[in-house]
Amino acid sequence: MVDLRNATGAELRQQARIGELTGPTPGLALGYVQANLVVVPRDIAFDFLLFCQRNPQPCPLLDVTDPGCPEPSRAAPGADLRTDVPRYWAYRYGELIEEPTDLFGWWRDDLVGFLLGCSFTFENALMKAGIPVRHVEQGCNVPMYRTNIACQPAGIFAGPMVVSMRPLTPAQAEAATRICQRFPLAHGAPVHVGDPVALGIADIHRPDFGDPVEVRRGEVPVFWACGVTPQAVAMKARPSLLLTHKPGHMFVTDLRDTDLETR
Amino acid sequence: MVDLRNATGAELRQQARIGELTGPTPGLALGYVQANLVVVPRDIAFDFLLFCQRNPQPCPLLDVTDPGCPEPSRAAPGADLRTDVPRYWAYRYGELIEEPTDLFGWWRDDLVGFLLGCSFTFENALMKAGIPVRHVEQGCNVPMYRTNIACQPAGIFAGPMVVSMRPLTPAQAEAATRICQRFPLAHGAPVHVGDPVALGIADIHRPDFGDPVEVRRGEVPVFWACGVTPQAVAMKARPSLLLTHKPGHMFVTDLRDTDLETR
Repeated sequence: MVDLRNATGAELRQQARIGELTGPTPGLALGYVQANLVVVPRDIAFDFLLFCQRNPQPCPLLDVTDPGCPEPSRAAPGADLRTDVPRYWAYRYGELIEEPTDLFGWWRDDLVGFLLGCSFTFENALMKAGIPVRHVEQGCNVPMYRTNIACQPAGIFAGPMVVSMRPLTPAQAEAATRICQRFPLAHGAPVHVGDPVALGIADIHRPDFGDPVEVRRGEVPVFWACGVTPQAVAMKARPSLLLTHKPGHMFVTDLRDTDLETR
Repeated sequence: MVDLRNATGAELRQQARIGELTGPTPGLALGYVQANLVVVPRDIAFDFLLFCQRNPQPCPLLDVTDPGCPEPSRAAPGADLRTDVPRYWAYRYGELIEEPTDLFGWWRDDLVGFLLGCSFTFENALMKAGIPVRHVEQGCNVPMYRTNIACQPAGIFAGPMVVSMRPLTPAQAEAATRICQRFPLAHGAPVHVGDPVALGIADIHRPDFGDPVEVRRGEVPVFWACGVTPQAVAMKARPSLLLTHKPGHMFVTDLRDTDLETR
């Protein structure tokens, strides 16, 4: 059994490709950038690319493939978007149809793949700096919430920003802001610190996605733009075909977390 | 006569819109971000947007309009790309056809406008820091060169990076690098300092575009990615229709130079 925690991005993708890895990727291939995957047909790819360009904080673009080409040659040369994700979700007109482990039955010559930055990159940086990441401590998924922040629409794509939340003390929140603003391709600095109601979140204990986590005495909720946003918006547009990774089952790139750090 | 040096972006655009301003814009509306304009039909807009996404240093995106919409609502709400540039260039299949002062005869419902960052933004920051900008001192256009650096192609768009050159002492070059890296949406830090031959430039005194400038004893040539790149690449792709600003006759936004400064 290969220890996938210390695998390279390429080794991890190989395990997914041969069907040995079909589970979630958090904590695996540590130090390698993990990415959200969104695949749409060419005829709406301009709209989606424009949506990402207009909303870089929830939708930080790491790579976009040429139509029909399954190789993300900038983020992971030699990789194959059809096989290298542990598990996919396939939607038709906004309905989840299948959870395949490869896309051979779905791929077409007009499909464009988008790889988008993910919070794991900055969470690793936070933990290295001694800042706690509660859902990792609790061994559950990060809590995520729909907000009242409207994304800038583009063509058929429109909808609210989804945010993730990690509870921190005010001093930790300040340090986290300094660290995360160095990672614009991994959602950057928090979009909000404190009162959830300001974002239209009624109950912090009932996230729209993921699991609730404990907010301790002396801590405030800290909110980051979340990579679920582009998927939620894409699903809502009900395109004829939409392929994504299954949440938590990410595409692992050849990029190192430090490659995304500015300065 | 209005003093256009101290005009706002909106005042300058108004002068262009009513036909009072048909000349170059350097030195006007000081402190406001000036932008390169590229307009292409929707059917190749995905390729062009992808080209800009893959080559952010020569092609820093400030705004992209919805197909058919002439208003760049993020960079200049209320502006009109059809009228607010002092002079345009109109190409068919890569051939320059006309130099109109408005685009009413050219605009179509499927056109997409791209506004791209421009070197004036970082030149202002350099001059404020006491770093000389030779072509401004000499009252001529900046020298620009085709290089041996291939841009990352996207669809029909491919070609070499074009760079601009400003001679500096090594100490000034270092200070300029520190300043310019704070402006990723205005081409960022220099792409090369020193020997022009490393970029495939045979003769520094014979630029491919613009005017030659004096390189003094103790100075080295410093090269920046240039906003002429996307236009040169777009022209070379010979699309059925391509509209741009006439060089030096820029679109002036509502953004302030300081808005583009990171941190």
